[in-house]
Amino acid sequence: MLADKPTDIPRARTDGSPLKPINEVLLERRATNKFTDEEVPAEVLDAVLRLGAQAPSGYNFQPWRFVVVRDAENRRRLQQVAFNQPKVAQAPVVVIAVGMKEEWKETADEVLREGAQRGAGNPDKVEQAKQGAVQFISGMDTALWVNRHTMIAVTAMMLVAESYGYDTAPMEGFDAAGVKREFAIPEEGEVVCLLAIGRAAEPDKPYTGRFPLERIVFAERFGEPWRDK
Amino acid sequence: MLADKPTDIPRARTDGSPLKPINEVLLERRATNKFTDEEVPAEVLDAVLRLGAQAPSGYNFQPWRFVVVRDAENRRRLQQVAFNQPKVAQAPVVVIAVGMKEEWKETADEVLREGAQRGAGNPDKVEQAKQGAVQFISGMDTALWVNRHTMIAVTAMMLVAESYGYDTAPMEGFDAAGVKREFAIPEEGEVVCLLAIGRAAEPDKPYTGRFPLERIVFAERFGEPWRDK
Repeated sequence: MLADKPTDIPRARTDGSPLKPINEVLLERRATNKFTDEEVPAEVLDAVLRLGAQAPSGYNFQPWRFVVVRDAENRRRLQQVAFNQPKVAQAPVVVIAVGMKEEWKETADEVLREGAQRGAGNPDKVEQAKQGAVQFISGMDTALWVNRHTMIAVTAMMLVAESYGYDTAPMEGFDAAGVKREFAIPEEGEVVCLLAIGRAAEPDKPYTGRFPLERIVFAERFGEPWRDK
Repeated sequence: MLADKPTDIPRARTDGSPLKPINEVLLERRATNKFTDEEVPAEVLDAVLRLGAQAPSGYNFQPWRFVVVRDAENRRRLQQVAFNQPKVAQAPVVVIAVGMKEEWKETADEVLREGAQRGAGNPDKVEQAKQGAVQFISGMDTALWVNRHTMIAVTAMMLVAESYGYDTAPMEGFDAAGVKREFAIPEEGEVVCLLAIGRAAEPDKPYTGRFPLERIVFAERFGEPWRDK
């Protein structure tokens, strides 16, 4: 059974102030290097996970899984397979984001059937839709496919945590095989990202600049200058 | 030269109403199947692109590029290499998100040097930092690496567009070789995602449900039940 939309997500920060708008989040967010030991309240972590789980995925297959590491001993274990970065053990919460390359084949039928029952798709053509989906996804590099999808959900989680006023650090510095071994992640799992969540212990790192749009955005065709404003 | 933080991003929707908070965006967003021909205002598209460009990336290398397709003829051309999905030609804006597997090596020096000048890192150790970064990234599957990164920026763009009150459709249904050929994307480019932006022409598709957290979130160790609330 799939779940209905959550209805009890907090609409404000824990101190009652409004969520930080996404423009401020994206402009003010910096990757946090040092965290305090202040815990992330259960309702905030729950909102981060449940809102992240609302991310879109192809065929609604949701090939993402998340291991939430909060125990101090486990965070030290994670640190050891994450190039010994101190923030991994410091942050009160580190989410290990995993993409599953195979499991979606087993849940496809359920997801498509329930989607059809909820009004998306023809209940009589679930088997046909499933065959099309399996053929389409199997034609891609499934490691790429689950990485892409999992990053949608992780990005949503990061932005949600920041909207609730918490600090985050997305990390790609880890030994995937070590993380899999230490946290019992199945062979088919791709360790995509670590996301630390907590409170920064010191002022943010300086803003390091971004390529101006002219260098990364093109009009109509790759290489054609973008000059919209 | 990298750019400073943009300071003139609109803080409200074009009608003056506040941006939609991220909790509402994530709960209400549905992939749009039919778009009207109403254009996306230049200031909204600019905000989507500039805020998306603020996404984090490893070493701040920003290996993402975006081709913004608005010309009707080009949208039809894109539709033809996107499994003929009508929404590709209908939506007033379709962003082709591309991850570049090689270009970051050429810009690494500039990015790290300017980062150090802005206070992140030691200006005397840029060459050393660059060697470490090149070694680290080259040790990964760079196709995976740029796919992950590009999805952070695309996800941010999608959520920003929705915050400004527009509708979106992220798409993975395309022939990557065809998209590259038709839009002059270099050999090293990975076509990661298409993002259509505009106004929905009909009510949203029904909500198809999501796996409950118990099925996708684990406590401390993969497979260990999550029961936080």
